[in-house]
Amino acid sequence: MQHSYRQLADAIGADIRASRYQVGERLPSVRLIAETQHVSVSTAIRCYRYLESQGLVEARSKSGIYVADWKSRQTTSTVTQKKNSQAAPAVEYDKLMSLQHRMTELYSLTAQPLHLGLHLASAAPEWYPCESLAKIAQRLLRQDPMLIGVYPGGTGLPALKTSLIQWLKNAGMDLQANDLLITNGSTEALSVALRAVAQPGDAVIVESPVYFGLLQMLENLGIKAIEIPCVPGQGISLEALEYALEHQGTVRAIVAMPNFQNPLGCAMPDKNKKRLLRLVEQYDLALIEDDVFGDLSHQQERPQAIKAWDKQGRVIYCGSCSKSLAPAFRIGWIAGGRYQARINSLKLSASLITPLFEQAVLAEFIQSGALPSHLRKLRERLAANIPLATAAISRHFPLGTQVISPAGGWWLWLELPEHIDSLALLRQAVAKGIAFTPGSLFSGSGKYANYLRMHIGRPWGREMEQGIKTLGTLISEM
Amino acid sequence: MQHSYRQLADAIGADIRASRYQVGERLPSVRLIAETQHVSVSTAIRCYRYLESQGLVEARSKSGIYVADWKSRQTTSTVTQKKNSQAAPAVEYDKLMSLQHRMTELYSLTAQPLHLGLHLASAAPEWYPCESLAKIAQRLLRQDPMLIGVYPGGTGLPALKTSLIQWLKNAGMDLQANDLLITNGSTEALSVALRAVAQPGDAVIVESPVYFGLLQMLENLGIKAIEIPCVPGQGISLEALEYALEHQGTVRAIVAMPNFQNPLGCAMPDKNKKRLLRLVEQYDLALIEDDVFGDLSHQQERPQAIKAWDKQGRVIYCGSCSKSLAPAFRIGWIAGGRYQARINSLKLSASLITPLFEQAVLAEFIQSGALPSHLRKLRERLAANIPLATAAISRHFPLGTQVISPAGGWWLWLELPEHIDSLALLRQAVAKGIAFTPGSLFSGSGKYANYLRMHIGRPWGREMEQGIKTLGTLISEM
Repeated sequence: MQHSYRQLADAIGADIRASRYQVGERLPSVRLIAETQHVSVSTAIRCYRYLESQGLVEARSKSGIYVADWKSRQTTSTVTQKKNSQAAPAVEYDKLMSLQHRMTELYSLTAQPLHLGLHLASAAPEWYPCESLAKIAQRLLRQDPMLIGVYPGGTGLPALKTSLIQWLKNAGMDLQANDLLITNGSTEALSVALRAVAQPGDAVIVESPVYFGLLQMLENLGIKAIEIPCVPGQGISLEALEYALEHQGTVRAIVAMPNFQNPLGCAMPDKNKKRLLRLVEQYDLALIEDDVFGDLSHQQERPQAIKAWDKQGRVIYCGSCSKSLAPAFRIGWIAGGRYQARINSLKLSASLITPLFEQAVLAEFIQSGALPSHLRKLRERLAANIPLATAAISRHFPLGTQVISPAGGWWLWLELPEHIDSLALLRQAVAKGIAFTPGSLFSGSGKYANYLRMHIGRPWGREMEQGIKTLGTLISEM
Repeated sequence: MQHSYRQLADAIGADIRASRYQVGERLPSVRLIAETQHVSVSTAIRCYRYLESQGLVEARSKSGIYVADWKSRQTTSTVTQKKNSQAAPAVEYDKLMSLQHRMTELYSLTAQPLHLGLHLASAAPEWYPCESLAKIAQRLLRQDPMLIGVYPGGTGLPALKTSLIQWLKNAGMDLQANDLLITNGSTEALSVALRAVAQPGDAVIVESPVYFGLLQMLENLGIKAIEIPCVPGQGISLEALEYALEHQGTVRAIVAMPNFQNPLGCAMPDKNKKRLLRLVEQYDLALIEDDVFGDLSHQQERPQAIKAWDKQGRVIYCGSCSKSLAPAFRIGWIAGGRYQARINSLKLSASLITPLFEQAVLAEFIQSGALPSHLRKLRERLAANIPLATAAISRHFPLGTQVISPAGGWWLWLELPEHIDSLALLRQAVAKGIAFTPGSLFSGSGKYANYLRMHIGRPWGREMEQGIKTLGTLISEM
C-alpha cells in the first residue's frame, strides 16, 4: 500500500490527539515508520516534519522523535516548526545509510505498480506446474477434508520425506527420514540452522556479494557477518577464507551457496567444495549449505551438494521447493547432520510444525515422476535466456558494463561504470515501471553500489528487450 | 516411529564401523538420540550400553559418550562393558530431570498407538468445519491454479486481515491492516514477539502452571522464565506479580493467557486485566497476550482481550485459527502495537512470509459469515462436556482428587493425591492405550508432579467414561 506523507501524518496526528500516544512518549523512528507503513523513508520524514509544523511532535537530536506537549504548543507552532524542521533529518540520518534502510527503500519502491519486475525472486508462474499441483491438491481435499481438522505433529510428512530422500540422491546425498526436517521454506531452515550453531555475538562467514535476506537475518539474530569474496567460476575464495579463519576467533560457521550463488549464479567446482569441507573440519566449524538453486542448473545435470562428501555431519543442508517447483507453498527442508536434534527443537519452538497439506501435494507430485520433466523444461528456458539477455545488454548498456554469466538460476549480476549508483538508478527506473535489485543490498557495508541484479526467469520478448533498453538509456544519461 | 534399542544400536554401530563417526569423536547425548530417533530416553540408554558392550563407544563421566578405539578394543570388550555400564547412566542422569527430558518422554510415550489421546491439543476433527473449508479451498484452486506459481510477499493477505480486523472487534480490538501480521501459527507469533522485546539473558514473567511449549521456547531463546502463580478465577496473581517486579531488574515482558489459560482454563476478570495493564505501563514492560483460546468460551459471549484497553501499544496480541477453526492450517496473527516494526522484521527473517492459500480459504470462510454459527456449536459442545467429565472423574478417581473447572477451552486440570507422580501414571496409562499430559511439564522446576491435564474436546461416550475409569483404577493402585 502507498500512503502520502499527509495521510500518514493525519493518522498519527489523530492517535496523538486521541492520546493513544502520550505527551513525551517516544514515537517510532522514521525507518520503522517506513517499514511498517510501507512508505519510503523520505515520505516518513515528510510526515514527521508536517507533524512538527503542527506542533504535535518534536525531534530530539541523537535521540528520536517524541510526542510534543501539543496542547500548550498549538499557539507556538511556527517556532516549533522552525526549530524541528532542522533537527528532524539529523536525528535519523545515520539510519538512512543502513542496510535496513536500503531494503526498506527497495521494498517501498517496488511496492508500486510495475510492468517489468526484474527484482523478483521466482520464475514466471507459467513456468511452474501449477495446473498439475492444483489438481493433486483438489483431489486430496475431496478425498479427505477431515485432514483440515487434524493438528499435525512430527518433523514432516513421512511421504514427502521419502520422496525427497529419493530426489536428493541426485545431489549425491544419502539420507534417512530422521536426517530430515521439513520447514516453512528455506528461510526458516537457514534461521534455525544459524541459531543451532551460533549465539548472539558470534560471527559467521558469508559470501560477498551475498543475498541481503541473509544479512538481515544475521542482524536480527545478533550474529556478526564476515564477508569473504565470492569469485565467479570458483565460489567463495578459499584463500581469503583461510586467512580469515586464521585471524578470527569467534567464527562458528560458514554460510555458502556452492551451487548457483545468489547473486552471482556461479557453481563451485567439486575440488573447491572438498577443500571448503576440509577447512570446515580443520577449524571445527559448521557449514550451512544453501542449495535452493541447486536444481536450476543450466545444464541437464545438477552439481553435487557439499553435503554429499560430509562424513562428520558438519554440513547443514538447506533446500526448498520455492525456486524450483512451487513458490507459494513455502516448503523447505533441512538435513542438519550432527546438529539435527538441536535444529528440530528450535524449529518446534519457532513455528511448531509445517502445514501438511502442501507437503502432501508435493509428495504426490514427486512420486508421480513429473519433477524431472518439469525441471528439464525449466532449465532449458533459463539457459536459453542467458545469451538473449546478454546480447540485449551489450546492445543497450554503455561501454564498461560487465555481465557475470551464471551457470544456473535466473539472475544476471551486472557491473556498471564506476560512477553509477544503482539505487539512484532504481528510483528513476521505477518511475518508468521497471525494477531490479541494486548492488548495494548485497553487502553490509554498501559495497557494489555500481552493480545490479537482474531477473531473467520469464518468457523472452519485446517487453524484456524494451526494459533493458530503457535501463541502458537511463544509465547513459547519468 | 518406534525403534528397539537394538535396531538403533546396530545403525549407530554400522556408522562407527564405516568411520562415519571417527574414533574419539563425541556422539549425540542420550537425550538428543531420544529426540531425533523418537525413542524413549531409556531405549537410548540401553542402545548406548549395548554399544559399550560391543566396545564401540565409551561414556566419559560428566562429559559425554565418545567413539571408542574400537579396533583395538574388540578383544577387551568385556572389561569395557564392565567399566562403562556403570559410567553410562551417570553421564546423562542430570539431563533426565530436565523439562526437555520430560517432554521427550511425553513425545515418545504418546508416539505409540493410543485409543484415547487425552493429551491432544485440538478438538475432535468432526467439530471443525472441514467440509466447508475444503470446498472453498477446491474452488480457489479451480479458479486460479496460477496462485501456486506466485512468490507471495507482504505481512499477510489483505482479505484475511480485513476479515480478522472485523472479527477481532468481538474481543474489543479496533485494528488497522498495518497493525496486523499473519504468522505461521501462534507459536511463530509468540516466538517473534519474545524476540522483539527480550534479549538472551533477559527475563520474562510467565504464569504457573504454564504451557510447556512456552517454557521450551524461552529456553531455546536463552530467556529466563519467572513463574508467577496463576489462580483459578483470577488469572496471574497480581500481588505476586507486583512483588516479583519490585525485586527483579531484568524483566522485559509478561506472557499471559488472560482468556482460558492453558492448562487452567480460567478467565481473568476485566478489573484484573486492567490492573495487569497498569502494572505493565508502570514498570515499562511489554505484555504478550496469548489469546488462542479466547474464542472458546463456554458461554456464548467471548471476553475482551487486554489489548482492547491498550493505549500505549505495549500489548502484543497473539491469536490463531489452530484451536478454534482449522488446526491443520497453521495460521496465526499478531498485533504488536509499538513493537510491530521490529516484529515484522523478525518474522521476515524467521520464515519470510506465511502461505497465502490457507489465508485465502480462511478469509472466504470468515467473510461468508459461517464463523459465528461454527463457534456457537463448538462452545456448546465444550461446555456440555465439563459436567459429564467432572461427574465421571468423581465416580472413578480416588478421594482427594480436585478438578479445576474451566470457563473455556477443552482442558481439565486435575490435582491428584499428593503421592501420585502423574508421569509414572502416564507410563502405565499408555500401556493401556490412554495418554494425558503430566503436570510436571507445566513448570520448569517440575512442580505439579501430582497434577495432570486432561483433554475433553471430543464427543462424549463410553470410550471417555471407560478411559477415565481406567485412569482412576491405575491411580487407586499406586
